[in-house]
Amino acid sequence: MTEFDDDTRVEAVAANDFAATVTARWNAIGGRPNGGYLIGICAQALRQTASTMGGGFPDPLAVSAFFHRAAVVGPARVVTETIRSGRRLATVQARLLQDDREVMRALATFTDLTQATDRTLILSEAPKLPSPAQSLDPLAAGAFAEITITDRFDYRVPVLPGWMQGRPTGDPSMTLWLRFKDGRPPDSLALVAMVDGAYPAVLEIGEPASSTVQLTVHVRARPAPGWLACRVTTRHVIGGYHEEDFEIWDADGKLVAQSRQLALLAQG
Amino acid sequence: MTEFDDDTRVEAVAANDFAATVTARWNAIGGRPNGGYLIGICAQALRQTASTMGGGFPDPLAVSAFFHRAAVVGPARVVTETIRSGRRLATVQARLLQDDREVMRALATFTDLTQATDRTLILSEAPKLPSPAQSLDPLAAGAFAEITITDRFDYRVPVLPGWMQGRPTGDPSMTLWLRFKDGRPPDSLALVAMVDGAYPAVLEIGEPASSTVQLTVHVRARPAPGWLACRVTTRHVIGGYHEEDFEIWDADGKLVAQSRQLALLAQG
Repeated sequence: MTEFDDDTRVEAVAANDFAATVTARWNAIGGRPNGGYLIGICAQALRQTASTMGGGFPDPLAVSAFFHRAAVVGPARVVTETIRSGRRLATVQARLLQDDREVMRALATFTDLTQATDRTLILSEAPKLPSPAQSLDPLAAGAFAEITITDRFDYRVPVLPGWMQGRPTGDPSMTLWLRFKDGRPPDSLALVAMVDGAYPAVLEIGEPASSTVQLTVHVRARPAPGWLACRVTTRHVIGGYHEEDFEIWDADGKLVAQSRQLALLAQG
Repeated sequence: MTEFDDDTRVEAVAANDFAATVTARWNAIGGRPNGGYLIGICAQALRQTASTMGGGFPDPLAVSAFFHRAAVVGPARVVTETIRSGRRLATVQARLLQDDREVMRALATFTDLTQATDRTLILSEAPKLPSPAQSLDPLAAGAFAEITITDRFDYRVPVLPGWMQGRPTGDPSMTLWLRFKDGRPPDSLALVAMVDGAYPAVLEIGEPASSTVQLTVHVRARPAPGWLACRVTTRHVIGGYHEEDFEIWDADGKLVAQSRQLALLAQG
């Protein structure tokens, strides 16, 4: 097993009812479990549930998660619901519970991305990044002890983040390479977690942290093996709330995932 | 009553159970009820439900809708659920049913937008449009008979759409002015419908229609009265699926709503 598959594993204990464990290995800023990691746990239960609806729905296409409470490290339960399946799409819901309290809820539509049509038109470009070998490892000086997710992912950046050197750039946007540190290749399921796998872009405007209210991810294609090129952008901070847009492009230069989250600044 | 309020009205028939009517006045391409209109109906029931959770949650902040089936004109039922309320946010769910079958489901978080903090930073600009008076009415030659939503909204554009003249421009993006034709001022609730109120940008790449799989809208501020400036962009059509990003800026030049939908081309 890889770290991601091991730590997002769910075990069916009844129909549409799964046991899971939120491990301490994906903690983000603040020492709390990363939201994308929680989406990953739900995605495992969602996919198993979608597979009971006909079997032809291996790929998450759209996942929308609402976060109600901070999750904690420890046991969790995922209760799912089948909503609707058709020829092409199956829609399911998951509720992540801890101590019988709902921590987050996700709606998701699954499909088989290999059955998509040929109609393709791309009007944007992959992030322009030096090769990973020519890029910098922002964690070369050591991972952040409390932020265990930095031990799960490798990052490579064209320039070191300003916030990391105590000089936020004032521009909440960035491009970076991302991959699992243990060599697990990306797939459509992992992408729904990876869109929340980098540090928040608002660190570059001097904000210490922010917490996700809602995140939607669209998986646009199955990714090729290798490094993923990411583009992260915040353009509007309004009344303490900000969006963060995250694009993931694969090693073949294909857009494979697109997400937007609405988050609230820690001081908001 | 205004047209929008009248046609999205819901009547509580039991706790968390509402009767509604999908009217024929908001039909989109294909002669079927517009997805944004259906979100508007759900938003009325969601807001009423959120108001039972403490009363301080008048504004939708984030709404994510999944569309399972085509809605039809006629009676509908909206079944809601309270999920979680805190000091600042209340999260609720709505299921829109017709003939006992679920047509769409929406998760939503409500708040009081007037209680937001001052932290604001805007790194983009409102669409650059000539004033509405100096713009063109794309429906001057007459509305589209089957597309009744064109009788509910006024549109003003800097240049007439290429697709409307039989010459799609090849660029699936546009800017336009939008308002309710009957003079109803925009508010936070109407915005969640208005982000789906224009013709799809993919008409400019020669596609006849597309259907929404999933739409998330973030309301960023309460809008000022008057015309709304909209920016609509599709950048990635992949395997028949495409995103459509929609921004709404109010008459004071403030960003008030941001949405993204994933849709499937009719020929996809």
